[in-house]
Amino acid sequence: MDERIRDHAETLVDWSARIESGDDVVVSVAEGAHELAVAVAEALGERGANVVTTYDSEEVARAYLRAHPGDFEASEHELALYENADAVLVLGGGRNTFATADVDGDTRQAAARANRRVREARLATDWVSTVHPTRSLAQQAGMSYETYREFVYGAVLRDWESLAEEMSRLKELLDAGSEVRLVTGDTDLTMSIAGRTAVNSAASVAYDSHNLPSGEVFTAPFDTEGEVRFDVPMTIAGARVRDVWLRFEDGEVVDYSAAAGEETIADLLDTDAGARRLGELGIGMNRGIDRVTDNILFDEKMGDTVHLALGRAYDACLPAGESGNDSAIHTDLIVDVSEGSRLEVDGDVIQRDGRFRWEEGFDAGADA
Amino acid sequence: MDERIRDHAETLVDWSARIESGDDVVVSVAEGAHELAVAVAEALGERGANVVTTYDSEEVARAYLRAHPGDFEASEHELALYENADAVLVLGGGRNTFATADVDGDTRQAAARANRRVREARLATDWVSTVHPTRSLAQQAGMSYETYREFVYGAVLRDWESLAEEMSRLKELLDAGSEVRLVTGDTDLTMSIAGRTAVNSAASVAYDSHNLPSGEVFTAPFDTEGEVRFDVPMTIAGARVRDVWLRFEDGEVVDYSAAAGEETIADLLDTDAGARRLGELGIGMNRGIDRVTDNILFDEKMGDTVHLALGRAYDACLPAGESGNDSAIHTDLIVDVSEGSRLEVDGDVIQRDGRFRWEEGFDAGADA
Repeated sequence: MDERIRDHAETLVDWSARIESGDDVVVSVAEGAHELAVAVAEALGERGANVVTTYDSEEVARAYLRAHPGDFEASEHELALYENADAVLVLGGGRNTFATADVDGDTRQAAARANRRVREARLATDWVSTVHPTRSLAQQAGMSYETYREFVYGAVLRDWESLAEEMSRLKELLDAGSEVRLVTGDTDLTMSIAGRTAVNSAASVAYDSHNLPSGEVFTAPFDTEGEVRFDVPMTIAGARVRDVWLRFEDGEVVDYSAAAGEETIADLLDTDAGARRLGELGIGMNRGIDRVTDNILFDEKMGDTVHLALGRAYDACLPAGESGNDSAIHTDLIVDVSEGSRLEVDGDVIQRDGRFRWEEGFDAGADA
Repeated sequence: MDERIRDHAETLVDWSARIESGDDVVVSVAEGAHELAVAVAEALGERGANVVTTYDSEEVARAYLRAHPGDFEASEHELALYENADAVLVLGGGRNTFATADVDGDTRQAAARANRRVREARLATDWVSTVHPTRSLAQQAGMSYETYREFVYGAVLRDWESLAEEMSRLKELLDAGSEVRLVTGDTDLTMSIAGRTAVNSAASVAYDSHNLPSGEVFTAPFDTEGEVRFDVPMTIAGARVRDVWLRFEDGEVVDYSAAAGEETIADLLDTDAGARRLGELGIGMNRGIDRVTDNILFDEKMGDTVHLALGRAYDACLPAGESGNDSAIHTDLIVDVSEGSRLEVDGDVIQRDGRFRWEEGFDAGADA
């Protein structure tokens, strides 16, 4: 076995999910994630955890969903499984990113509604999602398989402890600040973050962070004003989306355009009232992710990027008892901030051209 | 998809497991059983069942078992899953029949002991085991993949209703009888079956039958006397076993030999006291299984064969409250009865040269 797969498994089990002897763990295995599942099973065996392995095949899900009459109901056995689990390790990595493309939206939504309690039980565990590099994901990224594997392990096998420490500096600045301003190209956007708490997303449940890789600091902004252009290309709901431009007034999108996928953006904005407001401001800090691969799990953590999500805010960012932006969607869009850009907190530049103020080469400068 | 896979799935879901709308079903998927899993998911979706799919990879199990320190404990989440399940569909079909060959016996036994309650919970459901034809199983059978697939579907896609009806005739004869005598080649064996109940194993939970394919009638014999030669070749515990010969006195094996694997037989007989007695007399009646494939799920149901198991008897064959032969093993051995053979119940020939008395070509004959 490629030693990197074993390292990936150990990072997942130890750093991310903090598995201990006797933990009841569910390992969810995608169609292409067999090798990682073997390595994870070895790591879990060594630590003396108890394991149930589920098969999360998209082709199996497609067949089931398309055949079902539509009156989905809660699965008591599935609920019992997750209610009795301490942790869930989701090993993504399919064989076709469009495997469920012909399942209609109503069916998905009906199944998701019936599945609500199961989903909540999963989210109540120490869950972590990761991805095993497959040829399908390499194809999605426009990369050869070998190069894609190097890319994934470069993103996953970080010195997480030291990145967590660096990210805590940014978290402190955001927690202390009231207003963020992002300036780059034709983007000039201000958001309030007063009273909100940033999450140091260091790829570990110990940091309230449930993705491996992670490497971002995010918070829940409000009262957004100004314009932003998202110049990082993406696929959203199966559609190519390019150069989305949004104009905010009083916290809401009042105008928009896109070089590609404008209709997809229109549909998103029409989902509900919350879909026109931001739910997340995230700052990518994983420099192991050095290129766009059209996979949000990686793209949004890329160093030298900032992402904003339309829709739902994360509870971890909100004061206890306060509800943030509510919406059925949470769709991330990404801005490249590597050149000609600055990020300000209460008027102080904390990042310029992708360099943070504590990094070598940071230009304190003087801005108009 | 090959239409036979779909037919296999429907036979499993409808005839074997009798799945109904709202049933909570666990589908266990072996490494090579993906295609059957897709077809089963489609059938379960159509019927409106709720599904959890587990990944029963032998490579995952091997990695886990070899890495574990050995102090296995019950998995509460796994127990909860099965305690809340109505049915378990086990889709076998691996990629290497020796995938777990380097897991030591003590580890297996320790894991099995810790797993006892989970196993009991599974057995308390409407469970059915079947097998998807894989290249590994074709290799084990000494057959090409295509020919093996034809063989498997020939065994699985029977007219089960009419076979169940035919088998009920044999069950009636055995239930009414007190003594069975098997004569062929240098085999001449008598067994008591007085008070025992035969199982019409028609591949359906409705018949207390949990294998697909099935097609045998079996009961629990005792007070065995005489000699038997098992001329159907087998692999037992990874060892080739050929032409096992056993001599019984007062129900116990008192002498044995084998042309190959004699040591394996010796080990089996030494397991415990019950290992020297018979736990099962089974009569294969599935004529879709027309050759030996070194897979007990198929071989023991082959038409024109009789099998005897050393070790544990099945409760379904015993009068309520009576315990049959007890043992940690249940190992089947098979006799070809296609030629020069007869099976008698209380002195009446019920089968000769593989033909039952109700079949055309049956020779009532006159035996010494």
